[in-house]
Amino acid sequence: MDVFIEPIGRLINEFSKLPGVGKKTAQRYAYKIIGMSDAEAKAFADSILNCKRRVKYCKICGNFTEDEVCEICKRRDKSAVCVVKEPKDVIAMEKLHEFKGVYHVLHGVISPMDGIGPNDIRIKELLARVSEGGVQEVIMATNPDVEGEATAMYCAKLLKPLGINVTRLAHGIPIGSELEYTDEVTLSRALSERKSI
Amino acid sequence: MDVFIEPIGRLINEFSKLPGVGKKTAQRYAYKIIGMSDAEAKAFADSILNCKRRVKYCKICGNFTEDEVCEICKRRDKSAVCVVKEPKDVIAMEKLHEFKGVYHVLHGVISPMDGIGPNDIRIKELLARVSEGGVQEVIMATNPDVEGEATAMYCAKLLKPLGINVTRLAHGIPIGSELEYTDEVTLSRALSERKSI
Repeated sequence: MDVFIEPIGRLINEFSKLPGVGKKTAQRYAYKIIGMSDAEAKAFADSILNCKRRVKYCKICGNFTEDEVCEICKRRDKSAVCVVKEPKDVIAMEKLHEFKGVYHVLHGVISPMDGIGPNDIRIKELLARVSEGGVQEVIMATNPDVEGEATAMYCAKLLKPLGINVTRLAHGIPIGSELEYTDEVTLSRALSERKSI
Repeated sequence: MDVFIEPIGRLINEFSKLPGVGKKTAQRYAYKIIGMSDAEAKAFADSILNCKRRVKYCKICGNFTEDEVCEICKRRDKSAVCVVKEPKDVIAMEKLHEFKGVYHVLHGVISPMDGIGPNDIRIKELLARVSEGGVQEVIMATNPDVEGEATAMYCAKLLKPLGINVTRLAHGIPIGSELEYTDEVTLSRALSERKSI
């Protein structure tokens, strides 16, 4: 006999599929579910199905949406397009409440090591969008790692001939950090990109 | 406009109800769900509903079961009863594959600070079980904290007049630890409960 009865074992197994969740944590989550009222557990399960059923990708920018086209694409200034790797990066940018343009979610970055080439992510769609006209600036906001940089450079190369102003988020020392503990690559970048004050 | 669209926000909110899960972790879990196939997400939601529907408490021992009476109560030696605080403690004991008796889950411990008295946990049920006869030993396996100790003492006081051998899990230095780092209460207990070798 297994230590867990089948329905509990199955639930633990499902929770273990979540990122960073091991058997012990999954077990805690399962106990929490068992301790919930029927209505609470139903609401939990419903929210999963509901989310899966209603959330689609915006056919313009690739961000999460409930409709064909997301609220951001519908309402905002289309002259500036911020290109990000994933939908969660849109959330990070939106939390600033500063950027008033629209987004383009690549759903990945170019990574030859993982066998992901330019055709595997939404670069064609970006080019098509920009070719339609109206876009003045494309802000490459991919992560500052090797793949993110390479993707930004690749896109810039394709976009510049179209007369688009392609920019990149600034790299440098994070606010509130200390010089002593800043890694060398970041510090070197901050030095070479120094600005007059 | 909120940063999350409604179905995602709702799912994040549900995941935040799990123990130790904050907004950021809940957000990661929600993205994982969105990235799942429809079948996977359905299996996830189903396992929650299924677990909630099928898992009941054993009417004898109070442990989780799918039937009226759990597999352990049905099959095992009823002369020894191990008393624990919660169903997860049964799992901890069962993983040893050593104890061959049955369990009694109190679903709590006596804790006047939290307003939990002897009548709020399954002590009556334990007494009734023992009074029916056939029980030779009751092992008090509540946690070695103030409430657990108090509960063990309280039960022992009620059970001993019935001619039952009431025992308690041994306290002492954990295997593999070092004397230097053992807390004083544990060390003092280990000294006073020393055994001849």
